[in-house]
Amino acid sequence: MRKGLVVQKYGGSSVANVQRIQNVAKRVVGYRRRGLDLVVVVSALGDTTDELIALANQINSSPSEREMDMLLSTGEQISVALLAMAIHKLGFEAISFTGTQVGILTDSSHTRARIIKINTQKVLEALRSGKIVIVAGFQGVTSEWDITTLGRGGSDLTAVALAKELGADSCEIYTDVDGIYTTDPRIEPKAKKIKEITYDEMLEMASLGAQVMQARSIEVAKKFNVPIHVRSSFNNNPGTMIIKEAERMEDVLVSGITLNKNEVKFTVCDVPDRSGVAARIFRELSSFGVNVDMIVQNVSHIRQTDISFTVSRNEALRAAKFTKKVARNVGSGEVIEDNDIARVSIVGVGMKSHAGVAAAMFEALAKNKINIEMISTSDISISCIIKKKFGEIAVRALHGKFNLAK
Amino acid sequence: MRKGLVVQKYGGSSVANVQRIQNVAKRVVGYRRRGLDLVVVVSALGDTTDELIALANQINSSPSEREMDMLLSTGEQISVALLAMAIHKLGFEAISFTGTQVGILTDSSHTRARIIKINTQKVLEALRSGKIVIVAGFQGVTSEWDITTLGRGGSDLTAVALAKELGADSCEIYTDVDGIYTTDPRIEPKAKKIKEITYDEMLEMASLGAQVMQARSIEVAKKFNVPIHVRSSFNNNPGTMIIKEAERMEDVLVSGITLNKNEVKFTVCDVPDRSGVAARIFRELSSFGVNVDMIVQNVSHIRQTDISFTVSRNEALRAAKFTKKVARNVGSGEVIEDNDIARVSIVGVGMKSHAGVAAAMFEALAKNKINIEMISTSDISISCIIKKKFGEIAVRALHGKFNLAK
Repeated sequence: MRKGLVVQKYGGSSVANVQRIQNVAKRVVGYRRRGLDLVVVVSALGDTTDELIALANQINSSPSEREMDMLLSTGEQISVALLAMAIHKLGFEAISFTGTQVGILTDSSHTRARIIKINTQKVLEALRSGKIVIVAGFQGVTSEWDITTLGRGGSDLTAVALAKELGADSCEIYTDVDGIYTTDPRIEPKAKKIKEITYDEMLEMASLGAQVMQARSIEVAKKFNVPIHVRSSFNNNPGTMIIKEAERMEDVLVSGITLNKNEVKFTVCDVPDRSGVAARIFRELSSFGVNVDMIVQNVSHIRQTDISFTVSRNEALRAAKFTKKVARNVGSGEVIEDNDIARVSIVGVGMKSHAGVAAAMFEALAKNKINIEMISTSDISISCIIKKKFGEIAVRALHGKFNLAK
Repeated sequence: MRKGLVVQKYGGSSVANVQRIQNVAKRVVGYRRRGLDLVVVVSALGDTTDELIALANQINSSPSEREMDMLLSTGEQISVALLAMAIHKLGFEAISFTGTQVGILTDSSHTRARIIKINTQKVLEALRSGKIVIVAGFQGVTSEWDITTLGRGGSDLTAVALAKELGADSCEIYTDVDGIYTTDPRIEPKAKKIKEITYDEMLEMASLGAQVMQARSIEVAKKFNVPIHVRSSFNNNPGTMIIKEAERMEDVLVSGITLNKNEVKFTVCDVPDRSGVAARIFRELSSFGVNVDMIVQNVSHIRQTDISFTVSRNEALRAAKFTKKVARNVGSGEVIEDNDIARVSIVGVGMKSHAGVAAAMFEALAKNKINIEMISTSDISISCIIKKKFGEIAVRALHGKFNLAK
C-alpha cells in the first residue's frame, strides 16, 4: 500500500563525513520503515566542490565550462554511491543515479544549465521495485549527452523539480540549521524559527542574503506550487514550511530581517543629467557580467547628478574597472568606492497592505543613531544601506521594533 | 591531411599531480603539432581509486558492486576533465568523454565488466572537428545505462579496444617505467630493455608477476593484432613493442625472467591415492573463489600422495581455511602452509623448439646451491619455487646464464 512519496535533499554539510552519511542513511531508513516511498537527492561531500574548483584553477585559470561540469559532477556521484552503500548496510534496498541516468535533461548552458524536462521512468521503475532512489543533485545532461551542472544551489533545484515531476507529497530540504529564522540567531539570540513563510518572502530573503536556500529553486517551487520543508539533518525538530500562502493566526507585517555585509557601494559623481546616461552605465556593466544589486540616483542639481549602486564584494574589482571606464566615456566625475557598508532589510508580505512600515523601520534606525545612506524598496521588502559597524545593532533594533521575538 | 591516429594511455602515476597532468598535456600537444589525430585514455589520479575503495569500506565492508562502480568511475572522470583543461591551456582543442558518453558498452558484471562493443561515433565526430579526444579509462556502461568498471588494468583494456575499433596506427601505453625489461632492474642492474616481445611472451610474463600490463588487455591486443608500445611518460626513450611475432636478428631462447614473492605454498599431506580426490580439492577451492597458481602432485607411494599448490598471498587466508576443511573431508593428513617461498620463472617463445632450456635453468640454480621445491612448465615458460631468500640470487644467476645482458 502506497503511503506517499517524499523527496528529501541533503546538503554537503549533512554528508560531510562517513558518520554523517551513516546518519542520513538512518534517517532515510526511518522514513522507509513508516512505509513511505523515498527519492533522496544528495550534494557533494562537504567541501569537495570547492576542492575540485581549486584543482581546476591550478591547471587553467579559465577552465572550459563543459570540462568544469565534467569535473564537478563527480562530487555528487561519489555521495550517491556512498549513501546507497550505507543504506544497504542497514539492510534496505537502494539504488543511486547520476543526473544523466535519471534523465535530467537540461539546456547546454554549462555551469548554470536550466532543466528542460525530467524523464522519471527510471526513478519510477526503481520505486515500484521497492528501492530507495538516490539521485545526484546539481547535475543534468544535454540532448548531446554532455554533463551539465545547475549552478549554486543546484541540488535544491534537483529536489524541487523531481518533487514536482513525481507529484511527491512533500519535498524536504535538509541543512545544518533548524529552518528559516526571523533573523540570523548569531546576531540576535532572540531570533525565532519561522513556522511558515511564503515563496515570495523566502525569495526576497534569499536575494537579500539569507543563505539557507537559493532563489532559483524557490522560484520553481513557487511556479509549480511545491511545498518545501526546510529542516535540520542533525535533529528531528520540525523546520520551516515554504508555501504559497501562510495561514497565520494574525497578520504579520514583517517576517524576517536580513543583513548583508558582502556588498560594496559605488558612487559615480557629477553624472551629466541627460537621458540615457544611467542606461549606458548599467548596460556596460551588465555586458561585462557585473550584477548590480541596489541602484539609487540622488536628487539632481545643476544638470548633474550622482548615481550610486551596490555590487557583491566578489564583483567589486571588475565593477570598479568598468565603472571608471564608462564614467570617463560619459563625462562624469570621480567614482567613489565604499567598502564600509552593510545592507539591512526587512521582509514581509504583510507590508504590502500596511502603511507606516517604512517609517517604523527608519524610526528604529534613527533611535539608534544609525544614519541611512541609501534606501531601496520592493513590494515586500525595504532595504537600507548603513555603515558596516552598525549592521548588527540595526538587526537587533528592527527585530525588537517589529516584535519578531514574540 | 590525415597523418595517422594514435591511441595513448596514461596510467595513474603519469597523472598523479597537477605538474604531471601538465606534462602529459605537453606530450599530447607535441604529437598534435606533428599532425596526428589523438585519442588519449587516462586513469584516475595517483592513488584516487585506492582512497575511494577505503572510503567505501568504512561505510560498508561488502559494498554493492554496482555502487562501487558508480563510486570508482569518478576517478577517471576527474582525470579526463583536468587533462582537457590542461590541453586547452596550451591553446589546443580537446574534449573529454566518460565511458558512458563514448559508448563503451559492457555486460553487467560490475567491477569486472567485459566490453561488448564500442560506439565510435562520438569519438570520430570529435576527431573530425579537429579535437584531441580524451577518454576515461577503466569504465563502461551497460545497455541499462548502469556504469561499470573493467577491473584491474582496465584502462589498458580501454586503450587497446579503442585502438582496435578506431583502426589506430599505434597504441601507446605510458607508464612510470621505460618499457619491458629482461628482468626487474632493481634486482639485476644489468637488466636490459626488451625492444620487441610477442603477445604470448608478454602474457606469460604478466601472469608470472611482471606488473607493467595486465594479461587481459594483452589478450585482446593479441586477438585483434593491435601492436602496443609500452613506454615512459617521463622521457622520450623508445620503449618496448608488444607484437605478434618479434623480428629478431637471431633466435632468442629466453626473453625475460620474473620473480614473484607474493605466493604462498600449501601442501596437503597423505592424500588418499584415489581418482577424483585432487579434483575435489581444487573444485572446492574454486567454488570459494580461490585462484590456484601452480599445482604439483608428488610421486605417490603406498596409496597415498602429497599435493602442493600455490596461491597469491591475499588469498592465503581463505585458501588455508577451505583447504583444511576439504582435507578433512577426503581423509587426508595435515595441511602445511609455507610463506617462505619465491617463484622464479624464465619466459621465451624460443624455448618451444629448443631442448635443454630447462636443464640450463636447473644447472644455474644448482650451481648457486639453490634447492628447487616445485617445478612447473608451460609452452613458453618454466617456473621454479625456491626459498624466498634465494629469489634475487636466482634472478641474477639466470640472467647471466641466458646472456640477457648482452
